[in-house]
Order: sequence, then C-alpha cells, then structure tokens
Amino acid sequence: MSSNFYCVIMAGGIGTRFWPMSRASRPKQFLDIADTGKSFLRHTYERFSQIVPQDNILVVTTDRLGNLVREQIPELKENNLLLEPYGRDTAPCIAYATYTLLKRNPDATMVVTPADHIIRDNDAFKEDLQAALEYSSTRDVLTTLGMMPTRPDPNYGYIQVSGGRYNADDRKVMKVKTFTEKPDVELAKVFISSGEFLWNSGIFVWRADSIRAEMERYLPEVTRLFRGWENAIGSPVEDMFIEKAYSDCIKISIDYGVMEKTAKAWLYPARFRWADVGTWESLYNIVNVKDKDGNVFNAKHVLSKDNSGSLVISENKDKLLAVSGLEDFIVIDTEDALLICPRSDKRVKDFTSGLAMPGYEQFK
Amino acid sequence: MSSNFYCVIMAGGIGTRFWPMSRASRPKQFLDIADTGKSFLRHTYERFSQIVPQDNILVVTTDRLGNLVREQIPELKENNLLLEPYGRDTAPCIAYATYTLLKRNPDATMVVTPADHIIRDNDAFKEDLQAALEYSSTRDVLTTLGMMPTRPDPNYGYIQVSGGRYNADDRKVMKVKTFTEKPDVELAKVFISSGEFLWNSGIFVWRADSIRAEMERYLPEVTRLFRGWENAIGSPVEDMFIEKAYSDCIKISIDYGVMEKTAKAWLYPARFRWADVGTWESLYNIVNVKDKDGNVFNAKHVLSKDNSGSLVISENKDKLLAVSGLEDFIVIDTEDALLICPRSDKRVKDFTSGLAMPGYEQFK
Repeated sequence: MSSNFYCVIMAGGIGTRFWPMSRASRPKQFLDIADTGKSFLRHTYERFSQIVPQDNILVVTTDRLGNLVREQIPELKENNLLLEPYGRDTAPCIAYATYTLLKRNPDATMVVTPADHIIRDNDAFKEDLQAALEYSSTRDVLTTLGMMPTRPDPNYGYIQVSGGRYNADDRKVMKVKTFTEKPDVELAKVFISSGEFLWNSGIFVWRADSIRAEMERYLPEVTRLFRGWENAIGSPVEDMFIEKAYSDCIKISIDYGVMEKTAKAWLYPARFRWADVGTWESLYNIVNVKDKDGNVFNAKHVLSKDNSGSLVISENKDKLLAVSGLEDFIVIDTEDALLICPRSDKRVKDFTSGLAMPGYEQFK
Repeated sequence: MSSNFYCVIMAGGIGTRFWPMSRASRPKQFLDIADTGKSFLRHTYERFSQIVPQDNILVVTTDRLGNLVREQIPELKENNLLLEPYGRDTAPCIAYATYTLLKRNPDATMVVTPADHIIRDNDAFKEDLQAALEYSSTRDVLTTLGMMPTRPDPNYGYIQVSGGRYNADDRKVMKVKTFTEKPDVELAKVFISSGEFLWNSGIFVWRADSIRAEMERYLPEVTRLFRGWENAIGSPVEDMFIEKAYSDCIKISIDYGVMEKTAKAWLYPARFRWADVGTWESLYNIVNVKDKDGNVFNAKHVLSKDNSGSLVISENKDKLLAVSGLEDFIVIDTEDALLICPRSDKRVKDFTSGLAMPGYEQFK
C-alpha cells in the first residue's frame, strides 16, 4: 500500500428516501438497510482499509452526525474526521478534504467515495481501486469509475466516453465526453444501445493537486474560502475558519461544478458489481432472497398470504409480520412510524415532504 | 336498588378475533378497542354499578385472567371474583355463579352479561335492565334481552317470538319461539322481513332459582358437579372442589344447553343502542369518526393518501401512520406484531390459526 494513497469517505448525506428508517438524525449511510450486519459506512471503511493505509482514510460528515461516525468507526483518528458545519453538497466537501490532505502530503492521490454503495466482489473492487490509484497518481487526470450498465436504469448518472462504442473486453481508460444525470428511461435506452455510455459510480480517483487545480479554475468562489486553511489546521481558529468558510459557501456538486466542465475527466472501467441503493424500490430490486411471489420479508416470524412484489421490513426483526393481499407494496415499520405505500419512489417522497407540517418535524 | 338484584359479568372469553391486539393473555374484554378510555370490562362494571348494589356484582373469569380483572376493577371484593380453572363456555360459568349466589341469597335475581358489548344510551340501558330485573324477579322465567334489528347482520343470533309480527311500539315481553345462531345473510333477510325476529343480546335476566331449576332439568351432567358447592364455599376444599368440577365438566353454552330447550324463555325488548363488537370488521362498522373516504386512523399523526374503507390502528398512538393506496384494508400494529390484510374477518382468522405453528405460539 502506497503511503501516498488516501481515501475520503463522504458521509454527510441526509437521504430521506429510506424514510422512515433513515431519519435526519440517522441517514442511510449509518444504517444496515440491506441487513448485512454492518452499516453502509462501516462496509465502506472496511473495504478501503484493504486498499490504503488505515491512517489515510478520512471521513467527512456534518457536525451533528460526527458522533455516529465515531460510534461506527471507533478506530478512526479524530484528525481524520472532518466535520462540516453545514451540508453544502460534494464540491465544498471535496475542497475541505483536498486542502487538508495537501497540507499532510503534497503528493497525495485520493479516492473520493460516497458511503452508501453496495459492492459485491470485494477482490475485484480492491484490484480496480488499486489500479485506478496507480493510474491517476502519475497523471494529471480526474478519473471516475464507470460501471458497465446492465439495464436502462433512470436512477443512475451516465457517462459518455470519447472514441465511439466502448469495448468492454478492452478495459481501457477512456476520455470522458459528457455526463448526464438521471435521464428518463427512453433516453437511457438510447444511451445503452449506443454503446458509448457507462454508469457513473460517483467514485473518483485523482491526485490532490489535480483536483485542487481544477476546482480553483472552475469553482474559485468555493476554493477562495479555503485560502489559508493550511495554516488554520490545528490552530485555535480552526473551527472558526471552517464555520466561516461553510457559512459563506454555495451548495454545489463536484459533478456540476467541475466534472462536467473539466477537460481532464477520464473514465476508469470497473469490474466489481455495484449498486447505488438510493430508494426502497432499488433495495427491493437488488435483494436476491425473494419468495416465489417476489416478496421480501425481513422478520424471523412471517405469515404471508396472497402477496406479490412487496417489500415488508420491520426494524424490530422479532416482530411478527402477518400480511395478506398486498401487490407491489412497501411496508416499513419502525419504532415510531409505519409506512405503507405502493412500491414507487414518488409515494415515499410525498410523505417525507409532508413532514414539514407543524407537529410532524419529529418524524423527519 | 334492590339488595336481591345481582349482576354476573362473564369475562372469561379468549376472543382471538381482535388479534393481534387481543391475545390469549389479554382478551378483548380487557382492551379498549374502541378507544373510549376504558376497557369493555370496566365499562360493563360501571354500567351495572348504577343498576345493582356494587357488592352484588360478580365477575367470572378464568384463573389466568384473574389478575387482569383485579387490576381493572380494584374495588371488586375478592369473593365476588369467581375463577374458573378452565374455560367451559357459558353454562358451567352460569352454574358456578348461580350456586354461589343462591348460598348468599335464595331470593337472588340476576343479570348475566358478557363483558364485551358496546352500549350507547346509558339511561335507556339502566331503565331496561331495572325493568327486566323487576319483571323477572316475580316470575319463573328465563328472560333474554332482545334488540330491534336494523340490518340482516349474519354475525348476530336471532330470537323468534311467538304470536306473529312483533310490534316495536308495544314493547311487550314476549314468549320466545326459537333461537338461531348466526344465520347466513339471506336467511337473516327473511327473518327481518318476517317481523318476528329480534337480535339476541346475550344478556339474560332471571331468578337464580329459576335458572337453577332449568339447568338441573336440561344439564344435569353440569349441575351434579356443583352438588355440595354451598358447603365447600369458604372451606379449605373450595379450590379443589372447583378444580374437580371443571375438569369433569363438558363445554357447553347456556343457549344450546338451556335456552333452546326450556319452555320458560321470554324476550324482553330493549331500547338502548347496542353492538356486539366481535371483529375488526364490526369495529370498523360502528366507528362514527371516519374520514371522507371511509378510513379510520387512531393515531395522533397521520399522513393518508389514496386510501379508502380502511381501519388503521396502532397500539402506540404516538406512532406516525403514513399510509397510501389501501382499499378496504385492516392494519393493526402492536409492539410485537403487525397485521395487514383485507378487511374481512376470514383473513384474520387464517392468521390466528397459523399461530399454532411451532415458534409462533408467543404471538397467540
């Protein structure tokens, strides 16, 4: 493991789409939605412990989620936990991590990753990430891991590569032509049949000085806020500095702020199996263990009759689930909320919007 | 209040039809299913406290439910709590109470009532019961309170009176011709249009010596078990006596064992509004507070969208219920079980039968 290789885990998301299991006070990355025995964050941390030195893993999250990170990764050193006063999307988060790393190691090459992916094939993941780190450490490139698409999924981002039809056997690193966020299904079908598009994993690999240069070019309104940060680190004004930087900062994603504009975007084709489980619907889709009618129940005691295509989950796995007559439904039972609705993301969103009503904030 | 008037509340039922809220360890009569602030049993006790001297109210239940009665009626004297070792339906329960009362007062006239009715019009109830007690105290009759039927409900018992079409304005006590338990809807329609049938409330009024005589005539296999009971009461062998009587006793209802056979059955027409809430479906039907789409939610925080005809209840009223897309469903959420099924009694029964499976007994 190269001591120049780092990993930055972005764990500040507030994700309401796994409501009511995910809450503002306990977002998805801290949960074990897929019932694996570990939270998404913990899985992510352990995966990267195989790839970069443990001391080179940083976690960025918001202040109020800091204790959840400390609880789930007790071995994380305090100076590897970067706390944002406010969530400002991914670009400020990456700036914060980049300037912090550059102070430690001007030769740093970093993976930047969300904390809420499901990754299968850990070995392939490790090989892909190591290769992408090696590749990017010696070049002035912003590399994104691209995944071979298997269906026209409208919930993913798509990356078009230059040079025509992508040859999957080739596994060549390709220049990126365009980024497209969540197209509709029809457009996604066109993308896939063209052979020029891969899924955007949201995992980036780059030298810290490369991303700094492109952020300073395309996002000076963000990077100027971090001017002098290298001196503030570890000083009495550290907290005040970050508070000020974030309170003045715009909310902007690295995709929109840099990746869609830079000429240095490259795609590294990954081989591991990956899913961005963003919604109950997508969780339902990736669960392998369904009964013959396509139902998923998570409890130990289940009485099911005449159900199909339904996902029925209780936070309390000792609870008896006696369910009948549901077709394509989601049922999520937590200690203080019960969600029952058709298995479409829109419905869940309808409800979470309703939580702005007076008296309902406690369920956010 | 006449000191000769008594009330016997039968509170031994195991009712699984309000499952999963009712359990073997906490049957319906101990619950506040209709959310009134008091259990069915407590309501029954308080109603009869207005009609007979408080010391003249007896509660009969099974051993294992004794503490629930003590908890809900702390003012009940211990010798007014009759504990059956086993549930043996209503005839042995009534025999037990009858012989106990006769030892105290040979001139006793008693109301025998289930503990799980919903009664509206408390004043009418009081007048009706007082009148029925007066009427029965001076005659050798077995009086049943009959209710004017308002619909051909197949879940009720029907009583046919002698003398043709019943005149509701008359309010005459009538001789009973036949008893019919839960006819199908078509037959219930014929009953109602004939004008000769009333609903059987299951509330009986009679002199203790009258019911004793008819039980001894039609149920000697039951009454012989209580021979000598008057001497055992209060003696060291009291418990052993009852244990032996019940272990030898058949299971039989007073309707089948006596009322359908006796020539002394009379119907007292009651005026109070009454419902025998035996199932979730019947509870749904009697709840007045429905939203415009016919839904009933019991929680403080509800997000409802595109539901109709559904009953959604959580034992935890602070729980948020976010429900969408249900049509004619029942949702019952308790601490350790979640029932979701179409709003028909059969479904609930299907599930409770399933609780005989190994590993599921805890949810009975």
